[in-house]
Amino acid sequence: MDAVTRIEHALAAAVSYADAAGCPPGLAAAMRHAVFPRGARIRPRICLAVASACREDDPVITDAAAAAIELLHCASLVHDDLPCFDDADTRRGKPSVHRLFGERLAVLSGDALIVLAFQTLALAARAPQRLGALLVTVSGSVGVPAGIVAGQAWECEPRAELAHYHRQKTGALFAAATVAGAAAAGAEPEAWRVLGERIGEAYQVADDIRDAVADADELGKPTGQDLAHGRPSAIIELGVEGAVQRLEQLVAEAMAAIPQCAGAAELRALIRLEARRLLPKKLARRAA
Amino acid sequence: MDAVTRIEHALAAAVSYADAAGCPPGLAAAMRHAVFPRGARIRPRICLAVASACREDDPVITDAAAAAIELLHCASLVHDDLPCFDDADTRRGKPSVHRLFGERLAVLSGDALIVLAFQTLALAARAPQRLGALLVTVSGSVGVPAGIVAGQAWECEPRAELAHYHRQKTGALFAAATVAGAAAAGAEPEAWRVLGERIGEAYQVADDIRDAVADADELGKPTGQDLAHGRPSAIIELGVEGAVQRLEQLVAEAMAAIPQCAGAAELRALIRLEARRLLPKKLARRAA
Repeated sequence: MDAVTRIEHALAAAVSYADAAGCPPGLAAAMRHAVFPRGARIRPRICLAVASACREDDPVITDAAAAAIELLHCASLVHDDLPCFDDADTRRGKPSVHRLFGERLAVLSGDALIVLAFQTLALAARAPQRLGALLVTVSGSVGVPAGIVAGQAWECEPRAELAHYHRQKTGALFAAATVAGAAAAGAEPEAWRVLGERIGEAYQVADDIRDAVADADELGKPTGQDLAHGRPSAIIELGVEGAVQRLEQLVAEAMAAIPQCAGAAELRALIRLEARRLLPKKLARRAA
Repeated sequence: MDAVTRIEHALAAAVSYADAAGCPPGLAAAMRHAVFPRGARIRPRICLAVASACREDDPVITDAAAAAIELLHCASLVHDDLPCFDDADTRRGKPSVHRLFGERLAVLSGDALIVLAFQTLALAARAPQRLGALLVTVSGSVGVPAGIVAGQAWECEPRAELAHYHRQKTGALFAAATVAGAAAAGAEPEAWRVLGERIGEAYQVADDIRDAVADADELGKPTGQDLAHGRPSAIIELGVEGAVQRLEQLVAEAMAAIPQCAGAAELRALIRLEARRLLPKKLARRAA
């Protein structure tokens, strides 16, 4: 089974928990809307790629780890789109959860997706030792002191520390993707953290570039949000040219950070491919 | 160490995660405000009481389970108080989190407390087998299809199924408290579920009674909320007298549901004491 199919299967199995008797249908529908149809699924694909590079021996726990990370990402998008944050009308080219289901179900479906991530890990774990390592990694990447929720909360501070903001809001879950991929495969997990951090930084810079340069149609969500909300951005700091250079540098550093493993070459190829997809079409054409 | 001290220590240790370098100070303050000073701590006290009745051999994991359950309870209160739900100005006699810290930090501190519950379990687990059982129990009690988030989402449905609503919104976390207490002690956990469910139902009925009968000062939060928000309530269904009778019946059923264990007598005494504290002062005086 290819990576995309594995991820969609694992996510469908997780979300089907909300279809059991007794679950309010509105909550189940809001959760489904938040997770399907798929976004880029970049974090779970990284998780699977690392597990594969480490020659995974328990695909069930790898799939659960990948799904858990994507569920947490989807939860963070639902809460980020709330009226009190970005008040975004669209996401992935569809109405945002709060626009379609109301603010209350947006809050609750985000909460339920966070919990579902941990349920998914709990139910997949056949090797209890791996469960402990995965749980520490995944929960740390989303909670305090330095996960995505903490990153988002820097937006509520009078002075945001840019390094913390980026590392937490985006980098943490990418680092979790590489570390959890290794942990799921029974490899030494922490050796894989720097790779995830560099990919995360690259993704954040690319996101800032797209927010400033891409069309809303291409992006599937409103653009110009960083400037509109006074958020820290690599564009404001470095300009478009500087940000593109920084992106290239980060991709090179990511390549260099791959630990020795059986599948290093495939992993390098995947990162190269992803890096090309990160730039808006007009910049990618110019670069080519 | 007595139960209250154990619980406060465990919660303080958990919340101190938010004090680490790199955590936004506003988020840390909002989390602390949501957890301290203490509420009744009834769920973690039940968890500890069950573990003690089962003659626990690993207090660290018991304390973590108790703290995780209380953190999830605190998270649900913060999100319930949001403007899009109850829009409550006060909680436990203090300003609600969203009134003091704003809506954004109320959303994020609730999210972070949910995650912290799982971090707390992950970091305390020395026996990986118990971690798996605790994780399944605790995550199921708060997520879909039948945890407190699902219960809260019934408020968003055109027709709420009263049985599901009560069982999920309140009963689930009480059932988790007894089941997790047993699991933390290495006892057969599911035998303890009915006890938790009955205590949860009793607590819900008592909450409905207090909402209708108690003063806001005694309760530390606004009263009359069920009627104001058109929420299902035992008072609307049974009247005050009928609700008090129902409460007494549920407490008797809870007593009868205690599985055979070394500490059954202490546990019965605790439940009797708690049941008396559940009624508003004016009804308790009348009953006495």
